[in-house]
Amino acid sequence: MNFSELLRMRRAVRDFLDDDVPISVIREIIKDSCLAPSAANMQPWQFVVVTGRDRLKRLSDESKANLLEDLEKNPNSLLRNYEAILRNPSYNVFYNAPCLVYIGGSPMVRSLNLDCALAACYFMFSAVARGLGTCWVALGSKIRNPGLLKMLKIPDDYQFVAPIILGYPRVIPPVPDRAGPRILSIIE
Amino acid sequence: MNFSELLRMRRAVRDFLDDDVPISVIREIIKDSCLAPSAANMQPWQFVVVTGRDRLKRLSDESKANLLEDLEKNPNSLLRNYEAILRNPSYNVFYNAPCLVYIGGSPMVRSLNLDCALAACYFMFSAVARGLGTCWVALGSKIRNPGLLKMLKIPDDYQFVAPIILGYPRVIPPVPDRAGPRILSIIE
Repeated sequence: MNFSELLRMRRAVRDFLDDDVPISVIREIIKDSCLAPSAANMQPWQFVVVTGRDRLKRLSDESKANLLEDLEKNPNSLLRNYEAILRNPSYNVFYNAPCLVYIGGSPMVRSLNLDCALAACYFMFSAVARGLGTCWVALGSKIRNPGLLKMLKIPDDYQFVAPIILGYPRVIPPVPDRAGPRILSIIE
Repeated sequence: MNFSELLRMRRAVRDFLDDDVPISVIREIIKDSCLAPSAANMQPWQFVVVTGRDRLKRLSDESKANLLEDLEKNPNSLLRNYEAILRNPSYNVFYNAPCLVYIGGSPMVRSLNLDCALAACYFMFSAVARGLGTCWVALGSKIRNPGLLKMLKIPDDYQFVAPIILGYPRVIPPVPDRAGPRILSIIE
């Protein structure tokens, strides 16, 4: 698959086939992701792989409940835009995907967000090159329940950056509207 | 170029041929970058293209001076690691590249950093697919001089996220050491 095809095929996928993703394939994708550049080559990314639709549903319910709690504390939050879906019990933020990978790490690394976003970009392209689909699900990482945190085996200070669902796409959606490139200046 | 080749060829390039990069090619790369995913499809990225080695040298000198000023105000800053090169007058943070592209935008968009990092990743791959080399130069965006800011035609609240140099590589450096993937858990 050449770069033009990768560009066309890398879409936010929210409708997956029943097939599971082999762990060996997930490991390959994570290995590719670690080739991303990072500030001062610190490579601060740490990965958590969760499979099983029931487990993902529990993480979705946990994240939704915590986001609603945050919204009540801060009613002017942008989360207000998502309140209706967060209150809908049948809405699964992970869209019934067979697999979820968290990318994050220690907040002591100042460039953590940027570095993990680059690793996430590599992850998404590597998945596409293997016939898989992904979606970065920003609503899926407000996990506070001690039992769930223990299940994920993450350090206390772990900062979630990119929660990415992964699976074989049922359909590849078309490219949504894109604004024309906003080029403020070209100084020749 | 398939994805494996893109992965292998996307290296931090700091040694460029004399050839300029045609503006039409830069526009194509920016167009590709705008296909990156963004939170709520907000596409907050705004691009500034600067060509000309003299101009880049002025921006490098400006950024270095401001970083040293910041370091004096905050002596425990991590910038301390870069003090020697910042004090070296012959050190050009842009490595004499023929072109520099800033990616950034309004800090009112909460996801600006993550979104621009994704666009930057697309930018770097798109450049590689066209035989170009890039390097994200975090030291290159501390621009405060009003004349330079005016030259760049950026809004007052513009937040620089990714300063990326662009040019035809003299050499593609080998992959530097990578830690093994840090997978905290695989929950099957």
